[in-house]
Amino acid sequence: MKQILIIGAGRSSSKLINYLHQHAAKYRWEIVVGDLNPEAAKSRIGNKVKLIAFDINQEEESSQAIRQAELVISMLPAKFHILVARHCIRENKNLLTPSYVKDDMKLLEPEIKKKGLFFLNEMGLDPGIDHMSAMKEIDAIKASGLELLGFESFTGGLIAPESDDNPWHYKLTWNPRNVVLAGQEGTVKFIQEGKYKYIPYNRVFRRTELIEIEGYGTFEGYANRDSLKYIDRYKLHGIPTIYRGTLRRPGFCRAWNVFVQLGMTDDSYEMNDLKNMTRRDFTNSFLYYHPTDSIDLKLFHDQNIPQDSDIIGKLKWLGIFDNTPIGLERGTPAQVLEHILKDKWQLSPTDKDMTVMWHKFTYRDKTTKHLLEKHLSLVVIGDDPVNTAMSKTVGLPLGIAAKLILTGKIKRSGLFIPTLPEIYEPVLKELENYGIKFKQTIASPDN
Amino acid sequence: MKQILIIGAGRSSSKLINYLHQHAAKYRWEIVVGDLNPEAAKSRIGNKVKLIAFDINQEEESSQAIRQAELVISMLPAKFHILVARHCIRENKNLLTPSYVKDDMKLLEPEIKKKGLFFLNEMGLDPGIDHMSAMKEIDAIKASGLELLGFESFTGGLIAPESDDNPWHYKLTWNPRNVVLAGQEGTVKFIQEGKYKYIPYNRVFRRTELIEIEGYGTFEGYANRDSLKYIDRYKLHGIPTIYRGTLRRPGFCRAWNVFVQLGMTDDSYEMNDLKNMTRRDFTNSFLYYHPTDSIDLKLFHDQNIPQDSDIIGKLKWLGIFDNTPIGLERGTPAQVLEHILKDKWQLSPTDKDMTVMWHKFTYRDKTTKHLLEKHLSLVVIGDDPVNTAMSKTVGLPLGIAAKLILTGKIKRSGLFIPTLPEIYEPVLKELENYGIKFKQTIASPDN
Repeated sequence: MKQILIIGAGRSSSKLINYLHQHAAKYRWEIVVGDLNPEAAKSRIGNKVKLIAFDINQEEESSQAIRQAELVISMLPAKFHILVARHCIRENKNLLTPSYVKDDMKLLEPEIKKKGLFFLNEMGLDPGIDHMSAMKEIDAIKASGLELLGFESFTGGLIAPESDDNPWHYKLTWNPRNVVLAGQEGTVKFIQEGKYKYIPYNRVFRRTELIEIEGYGTFEGYANRDSLKYIDRYKLHGIPTIYRGTLRRPGFCRAWNVFVQLGMTDDSYEMNDLKNMTRRDFTNSFLYYHPTDSIDLKLFHDQNIPQDSDIIGKLKWLGIFDNTPIGLERGTPAQVLEHILKDKWQLSPTDKDMTVMWHKFTYRDKTTKHLLEKHLSLVVIGDDPVNTAMSKTVGLPLGIAAKLILTGKIKRSGLFIPTLPEIYEPVLKELENYGIKFKQTIASPDN
Repeated sequence: MKQILIIGAGRSSSKLINYLHQHAAKYRWEIVVGDLNPEAAKSRIGNKVKLIAFDINQEEESSQAIRQAELVISMLPAKFHILVARHCIRENKNLLTPSYVKDDMKLLEPEIKKKGLFFLNEMGLDPGIDHMSAMKEIDAIKASGLELLGFESFTGGLIAPESDDNPWHYKLTWNPRNVVLAGQEGTVKFIQEGKYKYIPYNRVFRRTELIEIEGYGTFEGYANRDSLKYIDRYKLHGIPTIYRGTLRRPGFCRAWNVFVQLGMTDDSYEMNDLKNMTRRDFTNSFLYYHPTDSIDLKLFHDQNIPQDSDIIGKLKWLGIFDNTPIGLERGTPAQVLEHILKDKWQLSPTDKDMTVMWHKFTYRDKTTKHLLEKHLSLVVIGDDPVNTAMSKTVGLPLGIAAKLILTGKIKRSGLFIPTLPEIYEPVLKELENYGIKFKQTIASPDN
């Protein structure tokens, strides 16, 4: 019996646990799930796997649990992966995570290599399926002797069309704090037609693009932080255009931008006197003073929102003009906004989520100079609020990678993300069995 | 002979050195000026005082120089005051600085008190004259049994009307880096009519006020970082309105806001490929891509600047559309912008600068309930690019405070800013001899 230790039994672990459980008998795996609160986890995942108490801050217990595993999958919040990684190095265990490789993890690379271990990060949806699907296409374009001129890529965690019943066309299908702080990680950087371009936070939600996906209508994309680092990661040196972004439904960004402009997404200071304030007071604290004008009107005037704009309905629906108490003793503006959003944007028990990914490759035949565009699109709909599209698209790549590692199909040592054919080929192939399959369209670019 | 050690012989030290030199014979002071580069300092201040080499990073030398002084005045960049302060505590010396008390200095308070030393900070213009003039008026209003309802205060380092010959009505009369980074120190916080108000960086230069100063025309003021901390400092608990800001000439802020919106004031990352870029390329890197439209037009369109706006002339005059190389090997957007501004906004040898301060006090007679507004305004014009208004208004309060300390007129121990009558009364009185005198106007508020 080979033991797989999954650390963290949150919402996005359910599909991963199911997948591994389904394959456990065949491959003789023992699945152990470690969670801070195993009782609560049991109510979500049932009795099919072994549940243990696991607290990454308990040095000795953590080491002991990891020592018994053959492979560790960390589903903890991103900042804790480094702690798990250090245990894995000490105990000579391979590690899988769905999160970005941060500098602290990168520093461990020589040790990982020296010990002959295999650490695979960024093995979820975004990052994860984005890397695999993009690299497969990029490698194919290069192999055909075509010249890649542009790569654009967008991903979004959204609400399925059948559950889309609010004016924002959005609900919280993943960490709400990240939704509020989106775009604040640093200045956006990308290249377009050979020119470096920079977008500050206050412009991110106005510099959007519209994207059509057949059968699912129109989406809008705003730019992600640093697209330039993908030049190295995808070996695209010299490419004239590279751009990565996040998808929302049209109109979302323009309305969200109101919060950005007013300062409601600011997480840098605690507000004064919050416990005595209503949502209406919260909104007013970002507006100029006027002895008689209404707060609604001041906001529309201040933000130059025309009387017939859809933004007005969106803002009113969220309740930011309501005379109800905020209900927090203290907090930053971002925390107050998150609190309001959680109220309105929560998934109902019958809601289904949707993950969407879209890539655009622009390339040229080196001899005919003929320009072509290929679009790849992926839409996954969740089954229910537990078996979400997010849980499938994050959990299945991890599960499949776990199988490849434990069955000896991947034989590497070091720190990786899934950009190698020996990883992306079998994973993308098996994902198709679960309906996670890209559609492709060839188009002629119209500039 | 009592020795006064002035550390740092930069531009703003000249008037301070002059003042002390003029009083040296009478009070039997020896003036010593320590500077990193005493030769260069000599060319600015001549032979009238003793010049020594002083490097605050040389622990032993610094201690030795400070040991011989009776009083130390630190004119170094703000971050070095803490090092001077530690030497002063060790050597039992009193200290004067024109800079804000930061947390690290605040931590020394118990030691300063225990040793019976007197450290006076924030003793220049802003901070400095602002504290003294405001506290004098606040104390008088309280003493008259009037109820203070509002305090607003603005200061600016500007160009004198006779030297005002560019469309921005602005030149660099102090640290250019601070001009570029202005407003980025944190979210603006103030109270207006009993309501807490917050302004994020991207809105600071649009939420301005117009201010009239008789004889000098109209100014505009944008909000400073944290006005709330002045409630404690000025003992204004319960005041319904408190607001502090910075003065520019009208139209400056709206045009400056273009740089803020585009991200040109961002100091958080280094730009790519700077050495091959022109100023025009720099501007373009913050704008959307278009194959044929001109960069000028893209900017006006992106920023919604009408064809007849004065902003267009301001931007063109600065040269941000010019095809001249930037002339920097590397740098952040803020550093590039500073480089461009230094070129255009520098003082010519015949230019005079101007410092302007304006306070507004709104108060009420407790019995008649009659509302009144008092405005205090101060305008100081420089003599020439060496004896600037900035140097006078920063240096003279320090010089006068030095005299008060050395002649035993101030008998306190601890860490202070000049909000006590025993400091502000004699300093403000003597400043009048140098033409630094507030004018007052009484008005009825018109809301």
